Amino acid sequence: MTERNPTPEGVAAAAKRLARHVVRTPLLPLEWRGVRLWVKAECLQEGGSFKLRGATNRLLLLSDSERARGVVAFSSGNHAQGVAIAARRLGIKAAIVMPSDAPAVKRDATLAAGAEIVTYDRMTESREEIAGRLAEARGATLVPSFDDVDVIEGQGSAGVEIGEQLGGRPDRVLVPCGGGGLSAGIALALPESRIVTVEPEGWDDMARSLAAGQPVPVAEPAPPTRCDALQTKLVSPLTLGALRQSRVHGIRAGEAEIEEAMAFAARHLRIVAEPGGAVALAALLAGRAGEVTERTVVVVSGGNVDPALYASILAAQAAERER
Amino acid sequence: MTERNPTPEGVAAAAKRLARHVVRTPLLPLEWRGVRLWVKAECLQEGGSFKLRGATNRLLLLSDSERARGVVAFSSGNHAQGVAIAARRLGIKAAIVMPSDAPAVKRDATLAAGAEIVTYDRMTESREEIAGRLAEARGATLVPSFDDVDVIEGQGSAGVEIGEQLGGRPDRVLVPCGGGGLSAGIALALPESRIVTVEPEGWDDMARSLAAGQPVPVAEPAPPTRCDALQTKLVSPLTLGALRQSRVHGIRAGEAEIEEAMAFAARHLRIVAEPGGAVALAALLAGRAGEVTERTVVVVSGGNVDPALYASILAAQAAERER
Repeated sequence: MTERNPTPEGVAAAAKRLARHVVRTPLLPLEWRGVRLWVKAECLQEGGSFKLRGATNRLLLLSDSERARGVVAFSSGNHAQGVAIAARRLGIKAAIVMPSDAPAVKRDATLAAGAEIVTYDRMTESREEIAGRLAEARGATLVPSFDDVDVIEGQGSAGVEIGEQLGGRPDRVLVPCGGGGLSAGIALALPESRIVTVEPEGWDDMARSLAAGQPVPVAEPAPPTRCDALQTKLVSPLTLGALRQSRVHGIRAGEAEIEEAMAFAARHLRIVAEPGGAVALAALLAGRAGEVTERTVVVVSGGNVDPALYASILAAQAAERER
Repeated sequence: MTERNPTPEGVAAAAKRLARHVVRTPLLPLEWRGVRLWVKAECLQEGGSFKLRGATNRLLLLSDSERARGVVAFSSGNHAQGVAIAARRLGIKAAIVMPSDAPAVKRDATLAAGAEIVTYDRMTESREEIAGRLAEARGATLVPSFDDVDVIEGQGSAGVEIGEQLGGRPDRVLVPCGGGGLSAGIALALPESRIVTVEPEGWDDMARSLAAGQPVPVAEPAPPTRCDALQTKLVSPLTLGALRQSRVHGIRAGEAEIEEAMAFAARHLRIVAEPGGAVALAALLAGRAGEVTERTVVVVSGGNVDPALYASILAAQAAERER
């Protein structure tokens, strides 16, 4: 990890660096209550989420000798796939530390991308420690999922694309927020726009931290949520710092609203959004997003959802609407 | 309708004309059996299918006095939405002739786009006649769904985008085929590529017509199919002529393969494909597409599927895979 803070210039450089390595995801128009606003469909990124951006940026900046020694990451989800795909495409060995009870669908996707999986027992072991030991033993580089300057700047390339695709600065960008890497990157890319982080109710550590001006953890016990990608309990000073500097504030969406947004995304945008990926759209549809203009952008950040769960959510929502 | 045939120059001009009126849909990478090929996700087009392209091109070419008198189309599906959206955005009145038993979801979408709906009885009346009479009475312009030079050239803009996004000509493009407007447009846009039309089994009038060198109707009775967008029973000389000139040939996909492809598209591409939109992907996944290279493109042409039906297909496919 570098010592500097992430910067707009760093984001711009990352966007240039990443252009031929990531999908330029579309900015899709959405008619909503008479306004034609925009959805950045980052669920269409390779690997199914924005995570490929930060991971690729981090890996592209490794030296030849660092590349030769490989990378290590811990994640049971989108970051794992992002790192695995980026590593394979750059010819770098990747080991992903995952809990032994990780969902089969996520393990399979990570294996399919060619990464080695190192499992641990969620009850008795710490993934941070295991990943750290593994990286040290191999001389490999640890790639954090958000608490890293290069990763944040890489995620910001999504914000650079938004500006280019919209032809200027958005009024407001609603961004799903877990650790805050994507939000921070987009805030740096679009300094004149109002950036709003969106979290599931009860997992609103970023909203609370932004309001308090310092890291505030999730209130325990945190309620169950389907948003596995957004279950961070404490923000990092790095992302919080970048977001505070951009005067970002945070809002929330409820679980029922999130499921409704997933069905809405399938019906009206024809995209598959995972629960955590749909949280900003959910806030919009629930009328929690403040003033909505033709220069409002909603980010759908990921689309990796268990197929059976996805089908059951769509079925319940379809039945609900027919009532 | 103009008297000339559609041409590559006409397609190029249409692509330029349409650039700021349609979504530049993404070309998404897809890893398949060790090959990284491409999917043109036209289900992400506004209105949920490529139909907006041809409709907008046709409407942009109307004279001011023609615009003032409005347009008429007959369709219960994607073309209806394409014409309705194009017309509203250009400030033109649109009347859509639909059977009185058309699915609520399609009626609602067409109404939502601001079009007038004129219903008819599918058993006793002909939609062509009703639309023709209506257009004559109002002095309005009839906008055919595929048998029209401007419409074909407009659909071809998808092919122009494919060439630009791929950075050169594809080896092979697999295109879902109903009336053949999209296939013909893409064939004109990419004259050096091998274009393959894909139809549901039993609805293969284009494949049979291409093989015979003249229009051959569907063999009756045609089997049931979920591909409501591809249920044309006889091709038009205009699209057949363009396809024959490009030495296009046609292949087929079965209903079970199509449902599998819809689930695959949700899981691996995070896009919603309707049955007819998934037919080319189905042929690929079933191994019917011939040689597959890194310059193979599969078009997913639409994503308008009844939400309850879609959920049930995904649920059945998820259960199937878990067995």
